[in-house]
Amino acid sequence: MFTDIEIAQKNSMLPIKDIAHKLKVDEDDLELFGKYKAKLPLDLIDEAKVKNSNLVLVTALTPTPSGEGKTTVSIGLSEGLNRIGKLTTVVLREPSLGPVFGIKGGAAGGGYSQVVPMEDINLHFTGDFNAVEKANNLLAALIDNNLQCPCTLNLDPRTILWKRVIDMNDRSLRNIIVGLGGSQNGIPREDGFNITPASEVMAILCMATGLEDLKKRLGDIIVGFTFDKKPVFARDLRAEDAMAILLRDAIKPNLVQTLEKNPAIIHGGPFANIAQGTNTIIATKMGMSLSDYVVTEAGFGADLGAEKFFDIKCVASGLKPKAVVLVVTIKALRHHGGAEPNQINQPNTDFVKTGFVNVEKHIENIRKFNVEPVVAINAFSNDTSEEIEIVKHQCAQLDIQAVLFEGWAKGGKGAEDLAKAVIDVVENKPSSFKPLYNWDMPVKEKIEKIAKEIYGASGVDYDKKAKLNLNRIEKLGFQNFAICMAKTQKSFSDNESLRGRPRDFVITVREIEIASGAKFIIPILGVMMRMPGLPGQPASEKMKIDRDGRISGLS
Amino acid sequence: MFTDIEIAQKNSMLPIKDIAHKLKVDEDDLELFGKYKAKLPLDLIDEAKVKNSNLVLVTALTPTPSGEGKTTVSIGLSEGLNRIGKLTTVVLREPSLGPVFGIKGGAAGGGYSQVVPMEDINLHFTGDFNAVEKANNLLAALIDNNLQCPCTLNLDPRTILWKRVIDMNDRSLRNIIVGLGGSQNGIPREDGFNITPASEVMAILCMATGLEDLKKRLGDIIVGFTFDKKPVFARDLRAEDAMAILLRDAIKPNLVQTLEKNPAIIHGGPFANIAQGTNTIIATKMGMSLSDYVVTEAGFGADLGAEKFFDIKCVASGLKPKAVVLVVTIKALRHHGGAEPNQINQPNTDFVKTGFVNVEKHIENIRKFNVEPVVAINAFSNDTSEEIEIVKHQCAQLDIQAVLFEGWAKGGKGAEDLAKAVIDVVENKPSSFKPLYNWDMPVKEKIEKIAKEIYGASGVDYDKKAKLNLNRIEKLGFQNFAICMAKTQKSFSDNESLRGRPRDFVITVREIEIASGAKFIIPILGVMMRMPGLPGQPASEKMKIDRDGRISGLS
Repeated sequence: MFTDIEIAQKNSMLPIKDIAHKLKVDEDDLELFGKYKAKLPLDLIDEAKVKNSNLVLVTALTPTPSGEGKTTVSIGLSEGLNRIGKLTTVVLREPSLGPVFGIKGGAAGGGYSQVVPMEDINLHFTGDFNAVEKANNLLAALIDNNLQCPCTLNLDPRTILWKRVIDMNDRSLRNIIVGLGGSQNGIPREDGFNITPASEVMAILCMATGLEDLKKRLGDIIVGFTFDKKPVFARDLRAEDAMAILLRDAIKPNLVQTLEKNPAIIHGGPFANIAQGTNTIIATKMGMSLSDYVVTEAGFGADLGAEKFFDIKCVASGLKPKAVVLVVTIKALRHHGGAEPNQINQPNTDFVKTGFVNVEKHIENIRKFNVEPVVAINAFSNDTSEEIEIVKHQCAQLDIQAVLFEGWAKGGKGAEDLAKAVIDVVENKPSSFKPLYNWDMPVKEKIEKIAKEIYGASGVDYDKKAKLNLNRIEKLGFQNFAICMAKTQKSFSDNESLRGRPRDFVITVREIEIASGAKFIIPILGVMMRMPGLPGQPASEKMKIDRDGRISGLS
Repeated sequence: MFTDIEIAQKNSMLPIKDIAHKLKVDEDDLELFGKYKAKLPLDLIDEAKVKNSNLVLVTALTPTPSGEGKTTVSIGLSEGLNRIGKLTTVVLREPSLGPVFGIKGGAAGGGYSQVVPMEDINLHFTGDFNAVEKANNLLAALIDNNLQCPCTLNLDPRTILWKRVIDMNDRSLRNIIVGLGGSQNGIPREDGFNITPASEVMAILCMATGLEDLKKRLGDIIVGFTFDKKPVFARDLRAEDAMAILLRDAIKPNLVQTLEKNPAIIHGGPFANIAQGTNTIIATKMGMSLSDYVVTEAGFGADLGAEKFFDIKCVASGLKPKAVVLVVTIKALRHHGGAEPNQINQPNTDFVKTGFVNVEKHIENIRKFNVEPVVAINAFSNDTSEEIEIVKHQCAQLDIQAVLFEGWAKGGKGAEDLAKAVIDVVENKPSSFKPLYNWDMPVKEKIEKIAKEIYGASGVDYDKKAKLNLNRIEKLGFQNFAICMAKTQKSFSDNESLRGRPRDFVITVREIEIASGAKFIIPILGVMMRMPGLPGQPASEKMKIDRDGRISGLS
């Protein structure tokens, strides 16, 4: 058994120009970053080709803490599709650097379904996260500078919403006081850092259609309020051009390759809780402009990832998915069926049978968008064939194909069945995607629709703060924004202990944030982590680099 | 009259592989970053070739706040040398991002003596500063995590020396309190951010001879003390490999080009006050491995920049400079001769005559290192020929060539005379470089030698804190480190109002810091700025980017 990094390092890569060649992209159009990474110019996007390409979304059942392998399935599926003759690009998010040194490790797939160069992708890659961080923090510096210097905006320091970000797991920066040290050193106020994927700049980058749109959205960011309660925007600080200048290269998608030397585009990485949790619209359209199939993924389970993908990304961009792959693991089914943590890796057909209600609800939900799902059973070594058969049987009763995915162990060869099932759906069960709600609907109606139809809630409660926030949204005229739900990923409900398919529950909206540049309204249903910490034994302790630059211990 | 960015944008660049070709570097050896930037692999460094190459240091008289144009002279001189047949590489520091949005603007030369692509160099470039920032901040996160989690190191939070860094002018981060918000969110303590060039990681990167040495030095960083007053090092947190992993690409020098399509290597950018203020040893050796001449510069006036270049960089690396160019401006001479700020741009031969004592002292100092200086008069439009003749005449009396440098207005053509004078010194006045002091001397003796022989001080006083610091240095066994003086650049003395050539003054060491990874002892002679602020009207407000990514307003 090799570790992910060992598998990646044993793999021989093609020069990235050869990968580009497969996509009919000329070497001269590439902006190379070494031999195995390149940025693609935006003018390669061709809306006519986007229309003719097939977009496949990979999502999952309600996940366990270790995740169910959506990225691995996405990569494996794209290998499988390429193996059987469909020119396919997998389009993914960029990993955040912070978690690499914490518990989670990297995020470039696993086993024999990986994107490479794995070390580069998991470290600084092509600098996009750094650019987002700098654009975010320039705005923060301009805000505090305006408080300090001319104070021309009458900004009330107690109302500032804009936080600094850093791509590091650093809990000590969650709650800080800045501006201490006397009158030469700023205005003291409460503040805090988020991790970079939680920046609204990241959400905006992933929604933008080009540089002009990016700039407009950056200018639309609300940074706080004046003493007479009027909103202050980034454009009031004349920040949007300088921020866009910092993102000039970051807006271009990154081309890399899979272990089987197929094209992969990796671009943007917004959080899946308070943001949309999927790669850039530009990257998805780039992939679709260059290949017959694009396989992409969205963070967390389908109640969050797929719903946001459909109602936010697809609506904003006009993208129409042709199929959905719902990743299921036997382990997660046992969990939803009642297994305790110590039972989760032990075969148990009863748990699997009972836990299937979770999958059933996700299938029903996906069909509400008029898209047909395929279930991918992501194989683990302690799954039994009885358990797998139960899933296949229960799916068949819902007229759904369930296919064993063995891409982790076997690469594209282990994903051919899944690829065939996906092609069958795309070619024989034409979908006519429609969103769940119309952005123009009243805010509460949109929230209620998601809560009832997707989560299965019986109603929605609003805390006092949320009600005040609703008033503010109305006053600001932001009712027609998309809803970006911030809910635990561990349950359909807002109570993470409710597994399976909870019924007769009410969700509570505690407060509602506005991301006015991304054009999201974010109902917060619980405590959302925006800055992770490091564990007692950080992963960094085991990492090594030798004199030739060879890395080990990165996972 | 065109602005710097307009001149840079009108210039047509060669593909960087063609620049590499001039240096006999194969395209395959390049790690490309787009078409006009590349990283060079360390194995191109050849110590035998380094020995045969000619190193020229560009330094300056005691500067005025706007600077005297060392970078512009360095670039112009290298154009001039290339024009008259000497294969020359200019080797410079990377600019910091923060000041680009403040008052100072970019730092890639000026007028017709620039390095390009100017926008890239002044923005994220190849990500080196980001890598330094991340390595620095990973260590910071590991420190606070050790306080929070297992606290295995018995680290006293009140003694922590390691600060976070951010490459942004952000005064509100100078003095902060971190770790607020209760027991899940860290240990509250006073803290602060420095700007990235002030990170010891940057100083270390610029001193390192390779990855192994880099790792060793990173591990040697002192982060604080235990409750029983024992030093805690980065290696005690097992941080050095992960930090070196983050710097794996940053350690490789960056190749770009000048406006006249000659090679330029830009790498590393440590502060000139609390650090060495010059590019990496690796970059300088790389340039010398690939060309006949290397022109390089060191921050601030010769009392700081040149002294540290000689006694720290040259001693650590074995480099032996063959000539020094001392940049002089008529404006600065007027200042040192007594001109008030409003008189500084008005011709005045008396001020120039009187102010020359500053140049005279710098010339005496440079000769103490057994290297021969050439004076470059960096031409400004309001200089008169009478003033220029005074400088030439006074230099001639010291047996020094003084040459008018017109590289800003004319590029390499305006630097040919300077180039000839430099070649004359290198070929006809062989230098035998020797440092001012031996690193093995006692700390106080080294400090005194610099103060008396370079600054012209009559003595050195030590504040109480400095005396305690001296004891600590002795206890820790760090006496044999190099001295990295942190003094105002505005005077030979530690009193910035003393212009010209002050005499009969005593300098006061207020405290002494240790950079144990860089192997510096840093006597602090005043308040050192480590985090600049933004001005009332930040430069960012005037920057623009159009839909095609074309930038204006960057200077």
